[in-house]
Amino acid sequence: MDRWSRLTPHELNVLESVLWLHGPTRDALLPRLSLSRTQANSVVAGLLEQGWLERGGQRESSGGRRAETLCLHPSLGVLLCADIGATSLDVAVLGLDLKLRERHTEAIDVRAGPAAVLARTRALMRELLARCKLKPRDVLAIGLGVPGPVDFATGQLVEPPLMPGWDSYAIREDLRSDYAAPVWVDNDVNLMALAELWRVKRELQNFLLIKVGTGIGCGIVCHAEVYRGANGSAGDVGHICVDPGGPRCHCGNVGCVEVMAGGPAIARDATAAARSGASELLAQRLAEAGVLTPEDVGLAGRAGDTAAHQIVQRAGQLVGQMLASVVNLFNPSHVFVGGGLTRIGPLYLAALRQCVYQRSLALSTRHLEVGYSPLGDSAGLIGAGVLALQEVLRGRGKVMAAP
Amino acid sequence: MDRWSRLTPHELNVLESVLWLHGPTRDALLPRLSLSRTQANSVVAGLLEQGWLERGGQRESSGGRRAETLCLHPSLGVLLCADIGATSLDVAVLGLDLKLRERHTEAIDVRAGPAAVLARTRALMRELLARCKLKPRDVLAIGLGVPGPVDFATGQLVEPPLMPGWDSYAIREDLRSDYAAPVWVDNDVNLMALAELWRVKRELQNFLLIKVGTGIGCGIVCHAEVYRGANGSAGDVGHICVDPGGPRCHCGNVGCVEVMAGGPAIARDATAAARSGASELLAQRLAEAGVLTPEDVGLAGRAGDTAAHQIVQRAGQLVGQMLASVVNLFNPSHVFVGGGLTRIGPLYLAALRQCVYQRSLALSTRHLEVGYSPLGDSAGLIGAGVLALQEVLRGRGKVMAAP
Repeated sequence: MDRWSRLTPHELNVLESVLWLHGPTRDALLPRLSLSRTQANSVVAGLLEQGWLERGGQRESSGGRRAETLCLHPSLGVLLCADIGATSLDVAVLGLDLKLRERHTEAIDVRAGPAAVLARTRALMRELLARCKLKPRDVLAIGLGVPGPVDFATGQLVEPPLMPGWDSYAIREDLRSDYAAPVWVDNDVNLMALAELWRVKRELQNFLLIKVGTGIGCGIVCHAEVYRGANGSAGDVGHICVDPGGPRCHCGNVGCVEVMAGGPAIARDATAAARSGASELLAQRLAEAGVLTPEDVGLAGRAGDTAAHQIVQRAGQLVGQMLASVVNLFNPSHVFVGGGLTRIGPLYLAALRQCVYQRSLALSTRHLEVGYSPLGDSAGLIGAGVLALQEVLRGRGKVMAAP
Repeated sequence: MDRWSRLTPHELNVLESVLWLHGPTRDALLPRLSLSRTQANSVVAGLLEQGWLERGGQRESSGGRRAETLCLHPSLGVLLCADIGATSLDVAVLGLDLKLRERHTEAIDVRAGPAAVLARTRALMRELLARCKLKPRDVLAIGLGVPGPVDFATGQLVEPPLMPGWDSYAIREDLRSDYAAPVWVDNDVNLMALAELWRVKRELQNFLLIKVGTGIGCGIVCHAEVYRGANGSAGDVGHICVDPGGPRCHCGNVGCVEVMAGGPAIARDATAAARSGASELLAQRLAEAGVLTPEDVGLAGRAGDTAAHQIVQRAGQLVGQMLASVVNLFNPSHVFVGGGLTRIGPLYLAALRQCVYQRSLALSTRHLEVGYSPLGDSAGLIGAGVLALQEVLRGRGKVMAAP
């Protein structure tokens, strides 16, 4: 990392701007720097000469001429990223343009504990790196998303409700046994929000990303930065009460949106509908598979099954009801919806959206857009890459590599 | 304002830091500037010489010596501020140290409309200025708080639910008929939050200020800045649903916390208790006064009246239930409670606080402090002063004076 420590603040600022602007032309880059044109050109020239930047493909400029773009130099390395969910593990090698170069997804159970899950993560990282014909020393930085509240300074989970074995586990040190590169850990939903912030080049200042899956969480972007809260637990919307007369949640309270509308709740309601005879299609599927998933419910609903249709609609409405409170408080310009439950079909989003518009104040929803996360199921991995690269470029990489 | 336009960004930065640090010693000021010690000392010397700063009283320094403080020069002028509530009008003259020099409070009905309320505001401003033996030209800037969502760029209310006559009214232009000084308008709760941010010298980064009165609103401080949201309606928590089976609100939805626990709801419940014979004390008071206020309910509760006690407790619980959702989302370090309903007694805050701690996640409440707003009923006026002075020091005063 020694070469990195010689970069000046101006140079790091240029490199970070190149990251956030997706390999911009000079004309797009220069106005975003707090430097004079001459100064900026001289910094860029130095970075090109020393192999930090390279000239990228030609891009159509506004004047009709083709202008060259600036990219982070590929020789700086790649990013290793993992998105650990409650029931899935996603690992990828990303270039410094945040494009996925190799990716592998598989089902896991995060409750198996950190030793097992991280061993598998490391094995997959090795395998994907080999597929790219790269060595551990080619890794510039590592980014990891985990499904619980993270103390960002230590990279450790803090009392994660769904995965008690992970509490305070030294994730960074575990990953560092294979790599000299610095490791960054954040909550999965924060990373999805960071990825969308990168996608829009920081041009949306205030938006939310809701992840609906086994749990329900919210990433908050405020003043064009991811907001983590006073203790890193901001966005923990899964335990917002949507029905004071609702069922008891594992958190101890009643009527939490997660216990009423998360993945397991949908599966539970579907199983009840199958057993009570309310849904023939779900009963068939249950007999075949032994268990029902939210995807089964979505399929049955789209095939015309009334009970399944109602389960999907009700789940969307409950999440929408929670979101209405959040929209009244936060007045975002956009709400992006991501996570596994988005796969259960368009009715879910329609019900959710209707509830938000109905229950939030007119002024908050007049320009509000509610839609799927454009980065979809790559958002977590891309966000982990943006985090890792950004932290290295902010000059904190070296500190963290040798704490 | 011509003299102001000659200030350099470094000079404005020093003046703004003096505002935020409450007249600091040099040792407290210098580390907060992004200048070398020599540069900073030279900028400060220039500002002292040109009459922008003056040396203030001596303050005990850590070494035991007495160190001189730096203040904005009183010859720069004073601030005129007004805090317009739904049922009260507060007007004051503030020094540049944000101390209240003259203040007047009276009951109003904001629904009387902007022409009447602002005429009265201007009359009071003239009167208070005269009491300070000052002239209109001594006014450096004017700050105004209003009880509804404000488009900050234009200083106009946008579809305020409690005061339809104010929609898009040109408040700034109205005030400018008497003064050459620039006028700044914001939502009253945002100003209370800004005042608390000033009180803590920006050292708390993420907190909420809840105002409970006729309406219920929330000021949000995020990354040490007041957060206004995408359309200026952030913090509109009064219409968060706390009971899907609750009564209908004027906003069209049911079970909004404002319609169930705002000032009018408490008065309504008290009147019902008086008429039904549930409370003798409230019935007596109703017979005497013809009408019941939240303060009456608080007094009766403290005198041992069970029905009044329950009304206060339930109102605190409902606001606490709403706050629990907000705390789960935002994970603030502090929640400050202000507004007229705080006067109904300690049981209200106790019930509110208990509900927040019970319904929010452990990680969000472990270090959370919930208490009264330390600036109390001066918060709105001080916040209006901080806003007006800050905007002038950020160099936008001149632009706004001649739009």
